[in-house]
Amino acid sequence: MKRFIDLAELTHEQVQDLLALAQRLEVRPERQALAGKVLGLVFMNPSLRTLASFQSGMAQLGGACFVITPGQGTWQLETRDGVVMNGAAAEHIREGLPVLASYCDALGIRVFADGKDLAADLAEKKFGAMAALVDRPLINLESAVNHPCQALADWKTLDELPGAARRKFVLSWVSHPKALPLAVPAATVHMAAMRGMEVVVLRPDGFALPAAIMDKARSAAAASGGSVTETADRAAALSGAHVIYAKEWGCTSHYGDDDADKEMRRPLKDWCVRNDWFAQAAADCRLMHCLPVRRNSAVADEVLDGPRSLVLRQAYNRLPAQMAVLHRLLKA
Amino acid sequence: MKRFIDLAELTHEQVQDLLALAQRLEVRPERQALAGKVLGLVFMNPSLRTLASFQSGMAQLGGACFVITPGQGTWQLETRDGVVMNGAAAEHIREGLPVLASYCDALGIRVFADGKDLAADLAEKKFGAMAALVDRPLINLESAVNHPCQALADWKTLDELPGAARRKFVLSWVSHPKALPLAVPAATVHMAAMRGMEVVVLRPDGFALPAAIMDKARSAAAASGGSVTETADRAAALSGAHVIYAKEWGCTSHYGDDDADKEMRRPLKDWCVRNDWFAQAAADCRLMHCLPVRRNSAVADEVLDGPRSLVLRQAYNRLPAQMAVLHRLLKA
Amino acid sequence: MKRFIDLAELTHEQVQDLLALAQRLEVRPERQALAGKVLGLVFMNPSLRTLASFQSGMAQLGGACFVITPGQGTWQLETRDGVVMNGAAAEHIREGLPVLASYCDALGIRVFADGKDLAADLAEKKFGAMAALVDRPLINLESAVNHPCQALADWKTLDELPGAARRKFVLSWVSHPKALPLAVPAATVHMAAMRGMEVVVLRPDGFALPAAIMDKARSAAAASGGSVTETADRAAALSGAHVIYAKEWGCTSHYGDDDADKEMRRPLKDWCVRNDWFAQAAADCRLMHCLPVRRNSAVADEVLDGPRSLVLRQAYNRLPAQMAVLHRLLKA
Repeated sequence: MKRFIDLAELTHEQVQDLLALAQRLEVRPERQALAGKVLGLVFMNPSLRTLASFQSGMAQLGGACFVITPGQGTWQLETRDGVVMNGAAAEHIREGLPVLASYCDALGIRVFADGKDLAADLAEKKFGAMAALVDRPLINLESAVNHPCQALADWKTLDELPGAARRKFVLSWVSHPKALPLAVPAATVHMAAMRGMEVVVLRPDGFALPAAIMDKARSAAAASGGSVTETADRAAALSGAHVIYAKEWGCTSHYGDDDADKEMRRPLKDWCVRNDWFAQAAADCRLMHCLPVRRNSAVADEVLDGPRSLVLRQAYNRLPAQMAVLHRLLKA
Repeated sequence: MKRFIDLAELTHEQVQDLLALAQRLEVRPERQALAGKVLGLVFMNPSLRTLASFQSGMAQLGGACFVITPGQGTWQLETRDGVVMNGAAAEHIREGLPVLASYCDALGIRVFADGKDLAADLAEKKFGAMAALVDRPLINLESAVNHPCQALADWKTLDELPGAARRKFVLSWVSHPKALPLAVPAATVHMAAMRGMEVVVLRPDGFALPAAIMDKARSAAAASGGSVTETADRAAALSGAHVIYAKEWGCTSHYGDDDADKEMRRPLKDWCVRNDWFAQAAADCRLMHCLPVRRNSAVADEVLDGPRSLVLRQAYNRLPAQMAVLHRLLKA
Repeated sequence: MKRFIDLAELTHEQVQDLLALAQRLEVRPERQALAGKVLGLVFMNPSLRTLASFQSGMAQLGGACFVITPGQGTWQLETRDGVVMNGAAAEHIREGLPVLASYCDALGIRVFADGKDLAADLAEKKFGAMAALVDRPLINLESAVNHPCQALADWKTLDELPGAARRKFVLSWVSHPKALPLAVPAATVHMAAMRGMEVVVLRPDGFALPAAIMDKARSAAAASGGSVTETADRAAALSGAHVIYAKEWGCTSHYGDDDADKEMRRPLKDWCVRNDWFAQAAADCRLMHCLPVRRNSAVADEVLDGPRSLVLRQAYNRLPAQMAVLHRLLKA
């Protein structure tokens, strides 16, 4: 494995190998596996789980990290090509990223969607431009429409549920004060499809996932024997569900239009997962969310604090899943 | 030892054990004692000594740290229960802290007093809510009314003075441009009392330490054979003193009222420790302060730069004292 | 070697020793050379290369770092002597720096020029005041008029060019939206002179390097058999050049006067290195720059993306050069 950018670049067998390794590292730590190795972490956007778990994972494998947060102790980075740099950004990614790559054995990059131009975001214009500058093993710490570290951790979490392999997985849009990126919904629907689950995307009108994301997931489902459908009918979607994966994202019918987005989400305050969402679900239906989650806006306290919630386990699984990725990328 | 939250939770013997271990680690480093161990550090407020000394201490014991500063590269954290999260904070401590704890072997948390509601601060409402979410060894990096790391380092510093064990210890209020928390004065008066010293709290009217803090210190003094008194009479307090521990804190008679606080401290500019404060003190009387100190506001250059000052030694002692705490919390 | 402050404090032999060690560490890593050692890094100003490469270098040698950025998670530091501290800065360097030094085996400090008082900046008033407070091995991470880490890396980069030892080295002023410090031009002209090169400082009228900087470089040239001249005649300077080292700096004839500086640089937009700058240069003439570089303001895309550019190699060489410095300062 040369890079960890998108779960879709991996075969089912490669994913199984990573998950087996993750489990092994939980039981039998390898304190010196990455001794002398250095991981560089570049955060163009905020982080909590990714920032902490990668540093912890490298340390537990005997390696080390450095963290770069442009604009915070470090120059702001220009990403546009051909521009005359006479504004705030003092450094261009064309210098910044190759330089950082030359200081480490692997580089992780987080860069969210601009959220203005859907085609550019779907094409991963920004992450792609940055990735092209790095000649080291590369890890996607969340890009415009992907979050493979989260997807791998979620896969592991689902594996830990008894018999859930091919069950009904509902990715449901939930309420949030403002538009959020498509990275996690896109990665999640693809991950569940790749696992062969019966995937239903539940979302209000105007919030359908873009065709490119749905098509990619349907291809994965075709290969795995799963399925991917979508609906705005909450009752139908939740009926018989084994997993409700709650996630916030922006209005896609008016992508990048903040005023329209605000108007569209105003009447959707009841898209907050409460106990009654589980009334017609399977008895052992669980709640997933990638975090951070806004309590009582996206998911109610009663669900997050109840026995259905897997959110802390999902977050914990980031650590062993990523340690497996680091091990495969960096261990000679 | 499962946690290091408050010196009052430790027996005199446990404190002696930590101090002996601190001294041993200074002489005989243990480069691999905490190999593979990870300490998470969460700073809700600024830091210099704590931030640097914990990272250095873990490294010197073979372990590693990650640092999380909510609002700086990391989402702001909501601390209130039951709230609908539609404001600036994207994540609740109910998720954030258990997640961070799951990535490390021990967690340190710094969260200062709100400084609005004295009863809430005395009850450690905020730190307590955070501590309750952590199922790992926990270190108090300074809370509303405690700073056990400073207290342990100060205990070590006092031990290094010849024969000072039961001498006169004056905790003196000093001038500062605005109200500061009660954490260090509370921890200091308790520490000195626990050591069996003759403790005098010297403070202007309106700045008396709350009864809960004084009562706790008096209990410790009763057990150790020391004493705790308070006065606004500077000459009486300083007479015969062996240690003047200078510290700034807010007006307690108008706690949380910034305007009243400002009014109360306006005429107190002469509460700045100068050489003449030592005129009637013991010949070898020393100056202590936990730092940071505002020069010529709280303590004059002539004292900080003179032979009486122990402030750098106090700060240095944070390192071995905390290494002992880490060793006891994390070494199998 | 007790400190690494200024290349001028080192003999030619000491520089050669560092460069040989840098090369050896690239070929034969020493994973445990600095085990248990801790480097403290204090950044009063932003950084990318220095921040990342020192952390990576220490990790690759088995040691660790802590990073302190005053004003970002840490109190702002007061640098003036004798002041009554009732403003924003909560801590004085007279406490802050000795304390940090006591937590580590070596300390690195970055503090840029104030850019107001040329004599004070040339005298390294600020860095000097900070350095005087540190009783550990000290590394200059860039001060008002020095950047020895960059100079050592550049020396290594020049050594990698076939036969360039005594060739023509042109340090050229280039355009930038605002005044930048003299640290890199001063360090660069001295480094090239110390190497015995034919050094030409090319700059518009009003941007001559201060006499103190030129005199110091000329002394180095006298000892090494090189030369140092200056001119505003671009054609003459570039003719036959083997290296064009582009660098931005502020107007020195109106030092510290932002309005005059802006007026002076307004007509100088064509001081941007383009391919045609190399027309009369040596066939194998190379472009150097310390980074960060503003593309199409200081150097054009066509040069930075072309085969003449050494900027990424220069930045990479920071890593082995600094590892050699750390090794000599810290290895018993």
